[in-house]
Amino acid sequence: MLIDTISSRQNPLVKRMISVRDGRERHLIFVEGARLVQEAIDSRLRIETVMFTYEFSETEKGKSLLETLQALHCRGAVVPEKLMAGITGVETPQGIALLASRPYASLEDVLEPAPQLLVLADGLQDPGNLGALVRTAEAAGVTGLITSRQTADPFQPKALRASAGSAFRLPIATHIAHQEIVQALRGQGIKVVTAAAKAPLHFSEYDWKQPTVLWLGSEGNGLPEDVAATADAAVFIPMAGAVESLNITVATALLLFEAVRQRKP
Amino acid sequence: MLIDTISSRQNPLVKRMISVRDGRERHLIFVEGARLVQEAIDSRLRIETVMFTYEFSETEKGKSLLETLQALHCRGAVVPEKLMAGITGVETPQGIALLASRPYASLEDVLEPAPQLLVLADGLQDPGNLGALVRTAEAAGVTGLITSRQTADPFQPKALRASAGSAFRLPIATHIAHQEIVQALRGQGIKVVTAAAKAPLHFSEYDWKQPTVLWLGSEGNGLPEDVAATADAAVFIPMAGAVESLNITVATALLLFEAVRQRKP
Repeated sequence: MLIDTISSRQNPLVKRMISVRDGRERHLIFVEGARLVQEAIDSRLRIETVMFTYEFSETEKGKSLLETLQALHCRGAVVPEKLMAGITGVETPQGIALLASRPYASLEDVLEPAPQLLVLADGLQDPGNLGALVRTAEAAGVTGLITSRQTADPFQPKALRASAGSAFRLPIATHIAHQEIVQALRGQGIKVVTAAAKAPLHFSEYDWKQPTVLWLGSEGNGLPEDVAATADAAVFIPMAGAVESLNITVATALLLFEAVRQRKP
Repeated sequence: MLIDTISSRQNPLVKRMISVRDGRERHLIFVEGARLVQEAIDSRLRIETVMFTYEFSETEKGKSLLETLQALHCRGAVVPEKLMAGITGVETPQGIALLASRPYASLEDVLEPAPQLLVLADGLQDPGNLGALVRTAEAAGVTGLITSRQTADPFQPKALRASAGSAFRLPIATHIAHQEIVQALRGQGIKVVTAAAKAPLHFSEYDWKQPTVLWLGSEGNGLPEDVAATADAAVFIPMAGAVESLNITVATALLLFEAVRQRKP
């Protein structure tokens, strides 16, 4: 790693960091904070540029991270703390951020590992929710995640933070058109399950051992009726009290861990 | 309801709204938005003051809500949209907010309904997480929630929003000292369960039919070791992949719905 010293916000590398952070260069991702940087290294992402503060490089964690990064072919830059705050856009930046190649999986990659337990995020708008979903999906042994064109980007910084590194490991095919998804699922005989408060089937009565995709809609409105009508099964989660719905991450976790329970050898 | 017209930020009633919103008058709560206001009415909270914009009062929802509120003994005020934005502190205020008496439950109230399924939030700092927890707890039929002195306030505005009205219905005893909690739990023979990634017992192997309190720590650090050591059982949730932990709302949902499953008649 070659290390420059940068102090101007006008520096092209600084501008590039911000441009990737804001989603204007989709082949790269912006990774902020010691923990996520460690996860990016552990997941063998291709790292292009690393920026850190002098203060961070003097910490225990900083020394160990930078030692690992030294061995990689990437650009490095030391920046003042104030500039780092501007680059990361978070209130208390940890002093390190990097650019890495965006992890890529095709729809075929994602659909391959059998027996499939897939999640299709179709309309989720909140990157924090989406990231939490990715983390939960990995923990439940989901074989892959698909996001439709109507969905937030699971690789944008807030989603990455909420996924706590899971987005680097779980196969994720993003920005796929509905038609392509439906065709591929039919072609492989994968069952489509949706969830709704008034669905007919208790979620534990569905046979989750079958190759299955859980098709999720948006936070507030769920799935459009015409999409929901094409599902092979619609399940509900029983709720006590006067609760009308669960938040989408919680509902998804309950469904996926029911699949874990049923699939246990 | 008597209705004033207020246009100054210096008006004492406006100052009072903001003071309650910011947690400086703990016997009252600040409720914002049409949906939460509806839940507050349905839950028969004692409403003290209602503020709304002329624009909101002309909407379908506004007309119906204000008709209900007319029948109650409370103060009302019409305020300009700009002032409402300042009062609510949210980006897109819905045009209605109110002050109501803070729902109250003593520790004894909360511990009473048997067989107990309780949640003790001890250290949660993020009001959004706490609110989501309250919502999930109600949906799982939890009999009561306790918050320790080290925990965010479940009745502050962001927590109320995330709880989607559940905080108005679930018995919640707040700001209770550790010693008092431990004594009361022992006195009633309620088992204490904690959760940790490296705990010895699979969460489905614990007998959730027993009177139980799930004792939760903070988001990042969990429970202090000396507290965890006094628990009757420590459970883990199996996680696939390289996931180190689940987010606290997800983990709690999985545990509580396992209790639902076991308690099903």
